[in-house]
Amino acid sequence: MQQSETNYTPQIIQQAIAAWAGQNKQVTAFFNKYDDSVYMKEVAPGRSRAIYLLGHLVAVSDALLPMFGLGDKLYPELEPLFIRTPDRSVADIPTVAELKQKWKKVNTVLSTHFNAMSAAQWMDRHMSVSPEDFAKEPTRNKLNVLLSRTTHQGYHMGQLNLLQP
Amino acid sequence: MQQSETNYTPQIIQQAIAAWAGQNKQVTAFFNKYDDSVYMKEVAPGRSRAIYLLGHLVAVSDALLPMFGLGDKLYPELEPLFIRTPDRSVADIPTVAELKQKWKKVNTVLSTHFNAMSAAQWMDRHMSVSPEDFAKEPTRNKLNVLLSRTTHQGYHMGQLNLLQP
Repeated sequence: MQQSETNYTPQIIQQAIAAWAGQNKQVTAFFNKYDDSVYMKEVAPGRSRAIYLLGHLVAVSDALLPMFGLGDKLYPELEPLFIRTPDRSVADIPTVAELKQKWKKVNTVLSTHFNAMSAAQWMDRHMSVSPEDFAKEPTRNKLNVLLSRTTHQGYHMGQLNLLQP
Repeated sequence: MQQSETNYTPQIIQQAIAAWAGQNKQVTAFFNKYDDSVYMKEVAPGRSRAIYLLGHLVAVSDALLPMFGLGDKLYPELEPLFIRTPDRSVADIPTVAELKQKWKKVNTVLSTHFNAMSAAQWMDRHMSVSPEDFAKEPTRNKLNVLLSRTTHQGYHMGQLNLLQP
């Protein structure tokens, strides 16, 4: 790659945030499409139910708060239900309505933080990598996590769109 | 967002290319996992077959060549089969082996181009947006297309992983 004299950094970071927010919006729109009961169905035979994928997406996004050094998780109780165990491991999970509320809240809090972060912060390590390892692999920064979370949301959006209402 | 004095542009573009290449790698690994016959199955009842999704991913990536002003498509014959029509519209489609070869070739050609593109080229308009519209919406650049294609690959990867071999 040729070095460029123009500093596009702030614009590119804004584009990456917009791509992430665009995926959030698709997930939100999907869970506003049907009656809550529809999301109790699995996306394919023997696979996760849509409600589980929503809980999973909330829990994964929530984990960005400590990972980015922005604070504690809002809903740490979701991790054992939606990250550490597959669907149907635990009988008692929040309702679709509750998860939709948490999804909205997590995204609002993250968006506010993201838009206030400097380029240097985005390019700095995330909290799951040590300063020593980051020195060796400087791409293990917060921006990379944002890119990968955006694709992760797309991954599950592809599955959600297979749901037969 | 605060303005930054450090120009991270080349590093960020490299990270975006790496994220795209990482998704390519996942697709490649997936289609090396089973016998070719397995990919003739649909990912979920009544949905696309895995072979169709591979053809679709080849055709969509191939379309980046003209869209980025890098040349003509390598396999224009794939568009009517895998973009303009859903699975099973056309009886005679290439084999899994042929599509895997095309997938490899398209990615090699694109990777070579991508790594030679300057930051200014990445931040310039893609060929599907007019100069006038781009002046109004400067985020409609090639980098944005790359970010969105990366998520698109993740989207179909999520579906492919539902395949029951």
